Amino acid sequence: MFAIKVKRMGRVIRIGDTAFVRRVISQEDVKAFGPLVGDFNPIHVDETAAKAAGFPSPIVYGMLAGSLFSGLLGSELPGPQSIYLSQTLSFVAPVFVGDEVEARVTVTQFRKSKFMIAFRTTVSRIERETGKEIICVDGTAVGMNKTVTFEGESEWTVPRVV
Amino acid sequence: MFAIKVKRMGRVIRIGDTAFVRRVISQEDVKAFGPLVGDFNPIHVDETAAKAAGFPSPIVYGMLAGSLFSGLLGSELPGPQSIYLSQTLSFVAPVFVGDEVEARVTVTQFRKSKFMIAFRTTVSRIERETGKEIICVDGTAVGMNKTVTFEGESEWTVPRVV
Repeated sequence: MFAIKVKRMGRVIRIGDTAFVRRVISQEDVKAFGPLVGDFNPIHVDETAAKAAGFPSPIVYGMLAGSLFSGLLGSELPGPQSIYLSQTLSFVAPVFVGDEVEARVTVTQFRKSKFMIAFRTTVSRIERETGKEIICVDGTAVGMNKTVTFEGESEWTVPRVV
Repeated sequence: MFAIKVKRMGRVIRIGDTAFVRRVISQEDVKAFGPLVGDFNPIHVDETAAKAAGFPSPIVYGMLAGSLFSGLLGSELPGPQSIYLSQTLSFVAPVFVGDEVEARVTVTQFRKSKFMIAFRTTVSRIERETGKEIICVDGTAVGMNKTVTFEGESEWTVPRVV
């Protein structure tokens, strides 16, 4: 189930524009992802294996959580006609199977002459015990979209990823 | 269908150790990935939409190709008990649906005291017309695995990702 919110619709890009999606990543999602990418680590599907690795319950593939940015960039911000140029992902805390997560992209910089847009990208979850928001995946993305117009000015300090 | 090769089996880590997997990413794989991550860009499934975006045929989600590294790190090198810390991905050329790709991870640095290992990570395909190997996804990853032993020495110049 998806709940997508976009703060700025349309194709005017401003620093601080943000879009997010909230969803539960289910055990079925995780079970479908493993064979697609050839990753059969049992900590994603098996309670005992997860506990042996130090987690209270099975954890979501980091790359599955991180892939939510692909949908946000392509469908929401900047939206259709986007070309995904790069993504960095830091897996800073586990996402547990069954958790509701929020994936968010926020415009941090743009480069008008190349139609390039840089984003901060995060996946967060609400900690069950404390209700606190925990960032689980933190990173940056760069996309290109020749259909947008830019409002305001921006520096461009984004290093080439690799 | 998977064909996995590991140059160094076991848990001795040396600079240059490498593992790779070769597989065809099918239209079925791509169709299964989209709903999992909420990415319904038609260029991945529809010939007309792909052509309109400047591609000869549908292209694979970059994050699906990049997720092959997750399987290699967790299952092959360094293998079970690995914790995935970070990944950078630069989408430098398209992977077309139906192409056979080779995902490869190669040890570039390690940090003995923290059991951390840095990799170069690439996904390549063979260009249909020329037979030339084209790197499509280029990046770096960092993993931690407390079960390995290290052979030799390494510097550690890896910046924190984010």
